[in-house]
Amino acid sequence: MTVEETCLAAKHNVSYPALLTTEDKNNMLEIIAKAIVEDAEVILDANAKDIENGRELPSHLIDRLRLTKERIVGISNGISDLINLDDPIGKILSSWVNHAGLHIEKVAVPLGVLGIIYEARPNVTCDVIALCIKTGNAIVLRGSKDAFLSNCTIVEVIKKALKKSGYNPEFIQLIEDTTREGAERFMHADEYLDVLIPRGSAGLIKTVKKNATVPVIETGAGNCHLYVEKTADIAMAREILINGKTQRPSVCNALESLLVDRSIAKKALPILLGAMEEYNVTVHGCAETAAICNVIPATEADYEKEYLGYEISCKIVDGVDEAISHINKYGTHHSDAIITKDNAVAEKFLREVDSAAVYVNASTRFTDGYEYGFGAEMGISTQKLHARGPLGPEQLTGFKYRIKGNGQIRK
Amino acid sequence: MTVEETCLAAKHNVSYPALLTTEDKNNMLEIIAKAIVEDAEVILDANAKDIENGRELPSHLIDRLRLTKERIVGISNGISDLINLDDPIGKILSSWVNHAGLHIEKVAVPLGVLGIIYEARPNVTCDVIALCIKTGNAIVLRGSKDAFLSNCTIVEVIKKALKKSGYNPEFIQLIEDTTREGAERFMHADEYLDVLIPRGSAGLIKTVKKNATVPVIETGAGNCHLYVEKTADIAMAREILINGKTQRPSVCNALESLLVDRSIAKKALPILLGAMEEYNVTVHGCAETAAICNVIPATEADYEKEYLGYEISCKIVDGVDEAISHINKYGTHHSDAIITKDNAVAEKFLREVDSAAVYVNASTRFTDGYEYGFGAEMGISTQKLHARGPLGPEQLTGFKYRIKGNGQIRK
Repeated sequence: MTVEETCLAAKHNVSYPALLTTEDKNNMLEIIAKAIVEDAEVILDANAKDIENGRELPSHLIDRLRLTKERIVGISNGISDLINLDDPIGKILSSWVNHAGLHIEKVAVPLGVLGIIYEARPNVTCDVIALCIKTGNAIVLRGSKDAFLSNCTIVEVIKKALKKSGYNPEFIQLIEDTTREGAERFMHADEYLDVLIPRGSAGLIKTVKKNATVPVIETGAGNCHLYVEKTADIAMAREILINGKTQRPSVCNALESLLVDRSIAKKALPILLGAMEEYNVTVHGCAETAAICNVIPATEADYEKEYLGYEISCKIVDGVDEAISHINKYGTHHSDAIITKDNAVAEKFLREVDSAAVYVNASTRFTDGYEYGFGAEMGISTQKLHARGPLGPEQLTGFKYRIKGNGQIRK
Repeated sequence: MTVEETCLAAKHNVSYPALLTTEDKNNMLEIIAKAIVEDAEVILDANAKDIENGRELPSHLIDRLRLTKERIVGISNGISDLINLDDPIGKILSSWVNHAGLHIEKVAVPLGVLGIIYEARPNVTCDVIALCIKTGNAIVLRGSKDAFLSNCTIVEVIKKALKKSGYNPEFIQLIEDTTREGAERFMHADEYLDVLIPRGSAGLIKTVKKNATVPVIETGAGNCHLYVEKTADIAMAREILINGKTQRPSVCNALESLLVDRSIAKKALPILLGAMEEYNVTVHGCAETAAICNVIPATEADYEKEYLGYEISCKIVDGVDEAISHINKYGTHHSDAIITKDNAVAEKFLREVDSAAVYVNASTRFTDGYEYGFGAEMGISTQKLHARGPLGPEQLTGFKYRIKGNGQIRK
């Protein structure tokens, strides 16, 4: 099937998941959670072939690509967890009577056909299908060539299981054309797709954003800041800095920049940067930082950088105003935190930092659908349109107006 | 100033309107409502020059371009009406405590910098500025060459008045480059703009959708249907058909297609199509319609057409299921209505028709920000991402998460 034919197949079936009952959707989740474990061997065989074909890939990509029995059980448990979440579809978001006596209801509905373009992570295939069942969306998956056999097999196993139980699985579609040209055509399939979500490297996201005619939800870079204000509990700041920078440096909610109030710099910096040294984190510091601690001089480019590794930039700032304007200027509007005991300063920071998630005395690592209690996540949005932050089930819905009258016409 | 410099100027000032108090924003609305009336002569002079320069434009374009003292007073009253609306910014949309004890609040914030690209309607310039003040957004206006002097003068009058009262007006910017190339550059200004809203012809919207790298809210076509179900009150159907088709045929919520239940066709069609004849509406009917009334034979293309004039397509359908699938297939997911006395059928129609606004026993002409009680409108969205239907103040907001902890780190 061509890219367009595959998208059309999903579109033809878009109303099927949209109109399912909560009970049916949860039943389907149970079925697929079971199916991937029961057919784990078939999936693992296909995955072994992908790994064999990809033997020249870098080892971190192989690691992402690799499935194990344990990983499949983990994915299956994740799918089962969705069952207990509220059904976001059909919720009445607001209702009122207008001047003409019309009863207007704003009701949550699925977005329609979601397109997902992603890299070699076959777990994404399962997660996305499950999330789409929960949210009543049709789905077109476009995974990478490297995971093609794994993805095909997962989709086959899931669709077979749904069909066997009497459900129509054709709202789930996988693009067979994994060429670059196929990706381009997918990005232009606005006739069939309501939304396109790229999940993967900065390069992929940039390409999609530049080329797509389908509306995109950008899941992007995180240049996250920790600002240690003059009233901060330094020990708390140290723990949150270590957590933010080192717990998982490769993810978008990891810290990339430390800002320290000038009035406490001499006392705080040795403690904070001492911790960084302990964890083998390279520090790119401003000139004032360098006068206190042993750091590599920071350039302008360092303040803009998402290192995604054991590196951080460090700047001394003159109070909360400079901290806020630095963050708004150099940051990516993802997640930023302040450590402070001063409530007024905390409120100012919460109000004026223009980021999806703004934290007081907590780690930026919490920006995550599971940590927020959404129960699932389709990436973290860094755009302002539609949804910001973790894309949980609620963020994968739209709305419509249902209006009841008794013959009203417009004057 | 280049397109990029103009956009950058708005971006530099994006936090200014975002952080204004409700009182200040309402004060600013009062100031600009007054200013455009006080300086009406200057605006009308500029407008007269635009009309003189555009003397070869078609008369309906001249009519849109033309301002009068009365029209300016009308625009001014519209701006004043915004003062009494709730401030959408700062509203706590939801709040909860997560598993780690973090207090999470989801708060409404402005979208950021809005770009508006529109045709020769200088009233849009005023409306958009006012709506952006209310919603705390910065704004970059890109009107058409034909209204350039009017737009410049309006923006000047407004900015001067704001400045005189001590407000910083630089979050309002107007693109000086009205060339095609300038429009292209505007659509690619994703570094500066958070959202781009095209307002105007289908051609303009298509170009923006195809080319923009800035996230777009599509305000689009309306192929709106009226389905007269077998239990319908035919007299009510007739009134709603006349209202939907003829009250203002050139707008997107006007009716373009009539569907009539087979079992009542012989009785209903002469009444309904008789009304169309009375109002000089050309009917493109299916073969069964043609067997009952005198109509032009409808082609497949007629069912897809947004006539925007005194024409309508008419098809006989076999019950609500066929009506729903016809609407979902040929419609544009804008506004569709059913006339029925059967509650179960009404509920089915409301649930299964996949449109921004679905009506029971009321005219599709109500799909409008003012009619819905939003108090203002920036067009009607036909996409599912972000906002569907009338774009009122609430639809011009995004959200952020404000999180308060006491030292939480992620495990």
